Amino acid sequence: MDDKALQGVFPYLVSPVRDDGQVDAAVLSRLCDDLIKAGVHGLTPLGSTGEFAYLNAGQRTAVVETVVSAAAGRVPVVAGVAATTIADAVDQTRRYQALGVDGILAILEAYFPLDDAAVCAYFEAVADACAPLPVVLYTNPNFQRADLSLPAIARLAERPNIRYIKDASSNTGRLLSIMNRCGDRMQVFSASAHIPACVMLIGGVGWMAGPACVAPRQSVALYERCRAGDWAGAMAIQRRLWGLNQAFARHNLAACIKGALSLQGYEVGDPLPPQPPLSAAGREEVAAALAAIEGIGAG
Amino acid sequence: MDDKALQGVFPYLVSPVRDDGQVDAAVLSRLCDDLIKAGVHGLTPLGSTGEFAYLNAGQRTAVVETVVSAAAGRVPVVAGVAATTIADAVDQTRRYQALGVDGILAILEAYFPLDDAAVCAYFEAVADACAPLPVVLYTNPNFQRADLSLPAIARLAERPNIRYIKDASSNTGRLLSIMNRCGDRMQVFSASAHIPACVMLIGGVGWMAGPACVAPRQSVALYERCRAGDWAGAMAIQRRLWGLNQAFARHNLAACIKGALSLQGYEVGDPLPPQPPLSAAGREEVAAALAAIEGIGAG
Amino acid sequence: MDDKALQGVFPYLVSPVRDDGQVDAAVLSRLCDDLIKAGVHGLTPLGSTGEFAYLNAGQRTAVVETVVSAAAGRVPVVAGVAATTIADAVDQTRRYQALGVDGILAILEAYFPLDDAAVCAYFEAVADACAPLPVVLYTNPNFQRADLSLPAIARLAERPNIRYIKDASSNTGRLLSIMNRCGDRMQVFSASAHIPACVMLIGGVGWMAGPACVAPRQSVALYERCRAGDWAGAMAIQRRLWGLNQAFARHNLAACIKGALSLQGYEVGDPLPPQPPLSAAGREEVAAALAAIEGIGAG
Amino acid sequence: MDDKALQGVFPYLVSPVRDDGQVDAAVLSRLCDDLIKAGVHGLTPLGSTGEFAYLNAGQRTAVVETVVSAAAGRVPVVAGVAATTIADAVDQTRRYQALGVDGILAILEAYFPLDDAAVCAYFEAVADACAPLPVVLYTNPNFQRADLSLPAIARLAERPNIRYIKDASSNTGRLLSIMNRCGDRMQVFSASAHIPACVMLIGGVGWMAGPACVAPRQSVALYERCRAGDWAGAMAIQRRLWGLNQAFARHNLAACIKGALSLQGYEVGDPLPPQPPLSAAGREEVAAALAAIEGIGAG
Repeated sequence: MDDKALQGVFPYLVSPVRDDGQVDAAVLSRLCDDLIKAGVHGLTPLGSTGEFAYLNAGQRTAVVETVVSAAAGRVPVVAGVAATTIADAVDQTRRYQALGVDGILAILEAYFPLDDAAVCAYFEAVADACAPLPVVLYTNPNFQRADLSLPAIARLAERPNIRYIKDASSNTGRLLSIMNRCGDRMQVFSASAHIPACVMLIGGVGWMAGPACVAPRQSVALYERCRAGDWAGAMAIQRRLWGLNQAFARHNLAACIKGALSLQGYEVGDPLPPQPPLSAAGREEVAAALAAIEGIGAG
Repeated sequence: MDDKALQGVFPYLVSPVRDDGQVDAAVLSRLCDDLIKAGVHGLTPLGSTGEFAYLNAGQRTAVVETVVSAAAGRVPVVAGVAATTIADAVDQTRRYQALGVDGILAILEAYFPLDDAAVCAYFEAVADACAPLPVVLYTNPNFQRADLSLPAIARLAERPNIRYIKDASSNTGRLLSIMNRCGDRMQVFSASAHIPACVMLIGGVGWMAGPACVAPRQSVALYERCRAGDWAGAMAIQRRLWGLNQAFARHNLAACIKGALSLQGYEVGDPLPPQPPLSAAGREEVAAALAAIEGIGAG
Repeated sequence: MDDKALQGVFPYLVSPVRDDGQVDAAVLSRLCDDLIKAGVHGLTPLGSTGEFAYLNAGQRTAVVETVVSAAAGRVPVVAGVAATTIADAVDQTRRYQALGVDGILAILEAYFPLDDAAVCAYFEAVADACAPLPVVLYTNPNFQRADLSLPAIARLAERPNIRYIKDASSNTGRLLSIMNRCGDRMQVFSASAHIPACVMLIGGVGWMAGPACVAPRQSVALYERCRAGDWAGAMAIQRRLWGLNQAFARHNLAACIKGALSLQGYEVGDPLPPQPPLSAAGREEVAAALAAIEGIGAG
Repeated sequence: MDDKALQGVFPYLVSPVRDDGQVDAAVLSRLCDDLIKAGVHGLTPLGSTGEFAYLNAGQRTAVVETVVSAAAGRVPVVAGVAATTIADAVDQTRRYQALGVDGILAILEAYFPLDDAAVCAYFEAVADACAPLPVVLYTNPNFQRADLSLPAIARLAERPNIRYIKDASSNTGRLLSIMNRCGDRMQVFSASAHIPACVMLIGGVGWMAGPACVAPRQSVALYERCRAGDWAGAMAIQRRLWGLNQAFARHNLAACIKGALSLQGYEVGDPLPPQPPLSAAGREEVAAALAAIEGIGAG
């Protein structure tokens, strides 16, 4: 990896949208600033937690603009591009590149099933549009209708600027298969469906996930233990942190992270309707999970 | 059913989009005109065949505008509204109502799973926005992440202007369950995944489907046999027509209907990339299916 | 169809097993006798409702022996053969043939996935073992790990004694596709997941299903309306009968039919543990569904 | 863990069955002996690789008898019990206990879905039947119709002799959730769908898997690196070994392990028909995977 390589903890940012449909830039900026001060290595707006599937073009642009401005070059910003058509994806990619992002998290949405050739065409078009910016492939077979097969990933790894993948399949073995197949040509980021310490053990370079948004210090502490090869120390942190992932897995992800941030004093609002806000029981569960990780990474 | 009730054959229209992203209003208008002359009872732009999931807001509006203008009040136009958020759905609904549509086909897209309350909130918001225009609920568990449960359908049936449902589940028994549960408060349209003659037998009021776009005369002939209670005559037609549904089920639906229309002289282009165009083998298969239904409903 | 053709209403019989593991031949015989007197056209022991997946070899044999003896040649007996291996399936087939059955309902169980060649090899081995007795293919993609593809069905239709299929997929259109593909070489029986009247309309020859076990008169009345081409009359019955199918679809099928028979005075016991017996709420629901069909087919 | 605790590498043994249906005790005994000499910590007959779903009662008994006799007390034998009914499961359990096994791997087969209460009743009945022998819960949501929920696992953990779980879900995060929920009351074994080194890192006690049957030395070497906390050394072995798991995941598991053993000189035959034997391409793939791990764990 060169100096500019993406690695470490990249929180999936929420997208605070007010009732009038405007993005609340103030609270989002403050969140970004606090996350950077807590030591995160990058910021990822418009991931699944960022409700990319629920925002219109104007809202998406406002989110990216706010995050790039708040980051102010201190950490890389990798923005999510999500579309069903190549035309829309390329348009988003160019817009975010013009806004100054440092990389693209490429997400393929689909209604009708697609074969590998069509899937690759989509990601290659995004990569061509933003070269030489790096592209992170995103795949989540649980919520998406198009998956990335191992041969498709291997083909995409041949593009110079397709260099990362974030797999949210919960199948950790698949990540080792990708590494064995693609070697250094494809670096792997964990998602919240995997155990980050395990992904680091097998050769991952970090994680992009919603929980890091509400536990940045703890996530960075875990990352540093992993990088130092202190696996016993890493697992001591990981075991406690995992309760947070479990709580999030039981609820709508966006509702959960927004609810947790609200408990922490960030008025980021609820997920966009008709998505329900975090329930009272969910708030209690999240509050308990947050209390259980107090102190990790402090001082 | 009153005089204004929706019933009969409603072809799902394709959305012809040129390489520059503009909707080809000329070919779409001609197709609408020919379909009306062939006897169809209504037109449905922006169904799944109409690639609602692949068009941007401007393209969607242009499609609806073109179809309303081409129909010129001769048959009702029921336009598809598809969104992940209530705000977007209401916005589309108002726009299409202002353009003069006669009904809304309401489609819920989702990324995260939703419970029944959230699902109902979405459809009720669309119904409120377009009242007193009738709403047709759309559900397709094969391609969507949010399904309509029987209790949710029963609750929605209480709204005065939610009066129809188009179920694309392929489970015909489910339609009879809906009829038994909701009675006259919810009229059922078939989809191409069901056998239309069967849906008519159990009490359906017609069908909304892509194949009717390329076999309008035959579809109308089938509908008339069903309405007349001539079930033997209906099945004689249905058996031959089913080959078309089978061909379409084997391929990307939009690619297939667009390919068939191109064989019939309508230059509607290919589906939006990265969706692949109909393959050469697919074209042959569709051509054979079309040849096999020649003559049905003629003269 | 020749004189010996299988057609009409074939109730899926339950398997009454006492706490000591013995099959209760007395109650099963009485049930068979009553069903035949109610006009059913055949009997099917060891279908899914008959808990084939839960009985050991001795229990299966006792069930078949009892049913053949009770039928006494008045109606054909088509016994279920279900196995994961060809050896076991052939063994069962020969045993039931020796007991005097009139046909085999062939069911393929699987743990690991199988390709079409392996699937066909299984069914062909059963057919060879019982020739010239007719074989009814059974497929239920909801509960089984091996499905019958359309090409596999077409290949199997070439065997002289593989002449029927019972598809429990709930996808009625698939049945028409099978008929269009195989023509007279493959007759189709409906399952309780389909609407029997619809399957008869498209060319089916009857149905094999659990609900016919508790509503034999009504089922026969429906069948006769269908055969007479009185589709309005058929639907009047079908609409009321469908409530029973809906009730059964909501509960464990074996528990439900056993519970309903117990309400009707047949002490057939509960399904084999750990399957739970029909709940109190389920019993009420089933009782209501039975009350609603009182009178159909009477006198 | 006490001295008698189960831990380490437990190969899933194949079940060699000759064409006449007899178990080939000679080759199975030789395989057991060689595995023990290679250092494995236990033997598991009648797992999925052992084709439990394909053997009749006599074949199952012969397999267990042979393995217990071959082990001769040198390592613990944990035999698979798999049934749809409690009666059958208890019967198998008692039979294997009488044969001298050291633990039971409890597998629940199902045709109709079951709720948690029914699932627990099954496993508790097995545990009661073999107490004080330890029970290993087995769950494989990919091939089975009944899964073990987290609350069900927690409830089962309260039984004194239900002390282990082998989860084949491929979702490694689920294992950490089980550990966090049950603590020391439930020890976790990895399956071939997980990366064993990752499962060891988070607190697992070993693995039960088919590949260990053909790579015993290498598996033991990996296990020892993990136990020593030498995670870098473990990953160096794991990365090479994973190719074997990948090859096995692409083919019928039993066919694959039997094919690999045949390449190693054990004439264990093919999986029971209609399961296809390992294809020529599969044999080449497996041979290459075996060649790639030559030398690991040697001398």
